[in-house]
Formats: sequence, C-alpha cells, structure tokens
Amino acid sequence: MSFSTLLAASAHRVQTRLDTALAALDDEPVIHAMRYACQGGKGLRGFFVLESAALHGISADNAVAAAAAIEAMHAYSLVHDDLPCMDNDALRRGLPTVHRKWDEAVAVLAGDALQSLAFELLTDPALGANRLDLIAGMARAAGARGMVLGQALDIAAETATTPLTLAQITRLQSGKTGALFEWSATAGAVLAGADPAPLGRYAAATGLAFQITDDILDVTGDASKTGKRLGKDAEAGKATFVSLLGLEGAKARAAALIDDAKTALAPYGARADTLILAARFVIARES
Amino acid sequence: MSFSTLLAASAHRVQTRLDTALAALDDEPVIHAMRYACQGGKGLRGFFVLESAALHGISADNAVAAAAAIEAMHAYSLVHDDLPCMDNDALRRGLPTVHRKWDEAVAVLAGDALQSLAFELLTDPALGANRLDLIAGMARAAGARGMVLGQALDIAAETATTPLTLAQITRLQSGKTGALFEWSATAGAVLAGADPAPLGRYAAATGLAFQITDDILDVTGDASKTGKRLGKDAEAGKATFVSLLGLEGAKARAAALIDDAKTALAPYGARADTLILAARFVIARES
Repeated sequence: MSFSTLLAASAHRVQTRLDTALAALDDEPVIHAMRYACQGGKGLRGFFVLESAALHGISADNAVAAAAAIEAMHAYSLVHDDLPCMDNDALRRGLPTVHRKWDEAVAVLAGDALQSLAFELLTDPALGANRLDLIAGMARAAGARGMVLGQALDIAAETATTPLTLAQITRLQSGKTGALFEWSATAGAVLAGADPAPLGRYAAATGLAFQITDDILDVTGDASKTGKRLGKDAEAGKATFVSLLGLEGAKARAAALIDDAKTALAPYGARADTLILAARFVIARES
Repeated sequence: MSFSTLLAASAHRVQTRLDTALAALDDEPVIHAMRYACQGGKGLRGFFVLESAALHGISADNAVAAAAAIEAMHAYSLVHDDLPCMDNDALRRGLPTVHRKWDEAVAVLAGDALQSLAFELLTDPALGANRLDLIAGMARAAGARGMVLGQALDIAAETATTPLTLAQITRLQSGKTGALFEWSATAGAVLAGADPAPLGRYAAATGLAFQITDDILDVTGDASKTGKRLGKDAEAGKATFVSLLGLEGAKARAAALIDDAKTALAPYGARADTLILAARFVIARES
C-alpha cells in the first residue's frame, strides 16, 4: 500500500471523529466555519498520532480523539494565521480562507473555539490514564513557548530591518511547526507511559524538513497543487531556508534531516517503517 | 472585613500565581501583551474558584492554579472581544486595549496563547485527581457551546434586522458570561467530587445579574470608573436588558436574581455568606 493511501485512510478516520464532535454543536455561522476549517487537510499530524500509538500497542479507537484534537488545533492555527492582520491570505487548501468566506469576527471566533475543542477532545476517557500529560504537552506546544511564539517571531520578522539568520529561522520554525509535530509523533509514547525521546527526535527532524520543504515549494511549487498563494516570502523580502542555503542547499539539508529522522527511530526497528515513509513524504510532497 | 477587601486579597493571590506562569516565558512583545492583558481585573471569577474550593475543604494553595486559569481565559476573551473586527474598543480597564497598545496581530496571538495557558494551568498537579473534569468543563464553557457561541450571537445581533428578544439575549449572555461564571463557582465542588448543582444555580443567577448590571452601567455608569467606553449598546441600536425591561425593570430583575442565587446556596448555610456578599457586589458595583 502506498503512503498516500495509508495517509488518506488515517485522515478519514480522524475526520470522522472530528465530524462527530462538530456535529454536536449548534447551527450557527461560527460552527459552520469551524467545520469548513477542518476540511481538506492532509492529516499528517493526526497520522503521526495514530502511528505512534500503534507503535506502543494502542489501538486507533483509543488514540483517535488525540488525532482529532491535533487536527483541530492545526486548523485553528491556520484560520488565525490567514487573518488580514497576520499573513493576509485569501486561499487555503484551494478554497477561500475563513475570513474571506465569512468575515474576520467569525474567523477569530472559529479559531478560538477550535482551540477549545482540541482540549475538549483530549479529555476523552478512551485516551486512558495518561491523557493529562498529553493535555499539558498540548498546552505548552500550542502556546507562548511553542506555536504562538513561532508565529509571533514570524510576524515580527516581516517588519525587521535585517533578515533573520539561520539560527533565528530554525528557532521560529521549531515553534511554528515543530512543536505540534513533536506533540503528535510522541503522543503514542506519552499515552503508553513510554520514553518519548526517540519519537521526539524523529519529529524535530521531520518538522524542520517539512518547513524547509514549504520554503522550497514557495519558490518551485505549483499553486494549483499547494492550494495557497506562493512566492510570498521572496515578495516580502523574508529570509527563508532557500534564501539562506540556496535551493540545492535547502534540498540537501531536508534530505539529511530525513536521514536523522530515520536514525532516531532505530530503537523501533522495522515497525517504524511507516513513519519513515511519512518523513520521506514530507519532503517529496507537492502540496 | 468588607467584600472589596476580601476580593482584593483573592485577586492578589491569583495574580501572583498567574505572574509566576507568565514569568517563565520569553521576553517577546506577545508575552508582554499577555502580561498586560492579565492586569487590573476585579478577579471575580478567580474569587469564585477559591471560595467554592474553601466551601469544600480545599485550600487556596490547592485551588489557585484553577483560579489563575479562569482569569487567563477571561483575559483572552477580553483581548479578542476588543478587536476592531469584534467590539472595536480602544479602552479596557482604563488603559488602551492590546491591539491599540501593540497591534492586531499581537492581540490575536496574545489571546490565543492565554487560552493555551489557561489549560496548562489546569494540569497543575496541586489541583488533584479531579482536574480532568475541570479541564473538560473549561473546554465546554469556553468554546462553541459556551463563551464563543455567546460572543458569536452578540456580533450577529449587531447586524440583525430585528432586535433580539429577552429569550435570545438571555441565551446569548448565558454563553458569553454565564458559562465561565458557572465553571468558576462550581470548580471547588468539581475538584472535591461533590454535587456542583447548587453552585451551578448560584452562578447562573449571578452571571445573568452581572450582565444585566453591565447593561445598566452602559446607560448610567461613569466611564472614569468602568474604565471602558459606555453608551455603546444604545449607539448601536442593540437590544439590552435595559431596552427590553426598562431601567427600573432591569434593576428589579437583577435584585430578584440575587435572591435566587442566595436561595441556591441554602444547602451550605452560613458558610456561603461570602458568596452571597459576592452576588450583592455584582449588582452594586460601579465598574
């Protein structure tokens, strides 16, 4: 079975759990916007959750609420990042962004409620006794030490007088993308009470490779495939992994990170093959 | 001791816990905005938490993280509600709103991170074994069934062609204010594994009285005391408890609700006197 097929099956399973949670809500525009924002993603973070759970003997049924939670959290971050005061994007996943389809107030509120929903999903008893650790980790990964800090540094970089250095971009991305990647890939170990370190190293390398690939796609990508506006970074004069390392240098760095990701999973042996496929997918994707 | 003195002592204790959590974060504008947004509130929700905990034999030390969490959640909601796309307010607690002092991006992100911080605080082990119930309740109260739904209905009312009815305003406010009030006042019972119903009834009545009083202050208040712009609702042609019940009718309704709140606490006897003082304060306040 190809990785794309595995990913689609996982995404479908996670979407069903998310749909159930969203179906329980009132029939109001902000709820419609929440449902809309949760559609059409690749489902990579949810996949990491289910796969790391499987690695630790936890069934998909007993992990899917955590996978749905991270997809809700990711969807919230995209809705807020797309706002006019942030990245000001009109297109996401090939469709109008939430503030374009509704308005800014609905976008702010839908994002806010998706964050709450993510935490609500993490209280699902099916996740077992260690779900409090997962909640604490999610709060740290999403907040002012993680994703929000990364986004704040990204926004600040747009008005900075000097372009960021490689170290600064790496710090920014480790918050913006890395923190939720790491939470996702370690979720199974946390739920099982196992050592999350190998999966954490895998996620850190894969997350950075993901972001380098985003920068590469911003230059070489096809907007009909990525479903979002491209060439934004060069337009804004922002430093990226491509502007700092060159296109070939960035590709080489991403490939080296995937090797690191593979090495990190050595303790799991062949059982981690699907996660290694996922890491390769991260740098080979066209969207 | 006057209720104001008790409230100030509680607010100081809660602020100290919140300051500790915020001090652990990086020195970035978004973090400064988070700290700023958490200053200068009355601390009523945190007071409810500590008081309901005391009613169930839980010390302030073992409840203060929950009190800090609700104040962080409340602060996030104010920062987002003040945004230009929402209520577009320039003044809050007598100071410039976050998006005026920084900018809209910082305000969106500071609010987002304060919500994450609220959930992080609720994972504090000092809160004991039932904190998962508190987290689940917070997620429901804050999200698309509670506070966000209330705010969405409020925003929608501004562009509605017909003013809201009393039933619609009551539903709106039970989300916007009531949900977090209820969470706060029942927190002690939830942590102790006791029946939260009496405190829930107390909070529902007190929350509605609080909102009626806000509508009264919007008409009769002194902006130098409330620290926010007044007369907004009449200006926007919005239905309020005052426009629907008249000023005297609204005052009478608020007073009747405080009687209901007092009745609800009968099972606690004289031990609930401070909460009854708090309910009276809610309708007597000038800010």
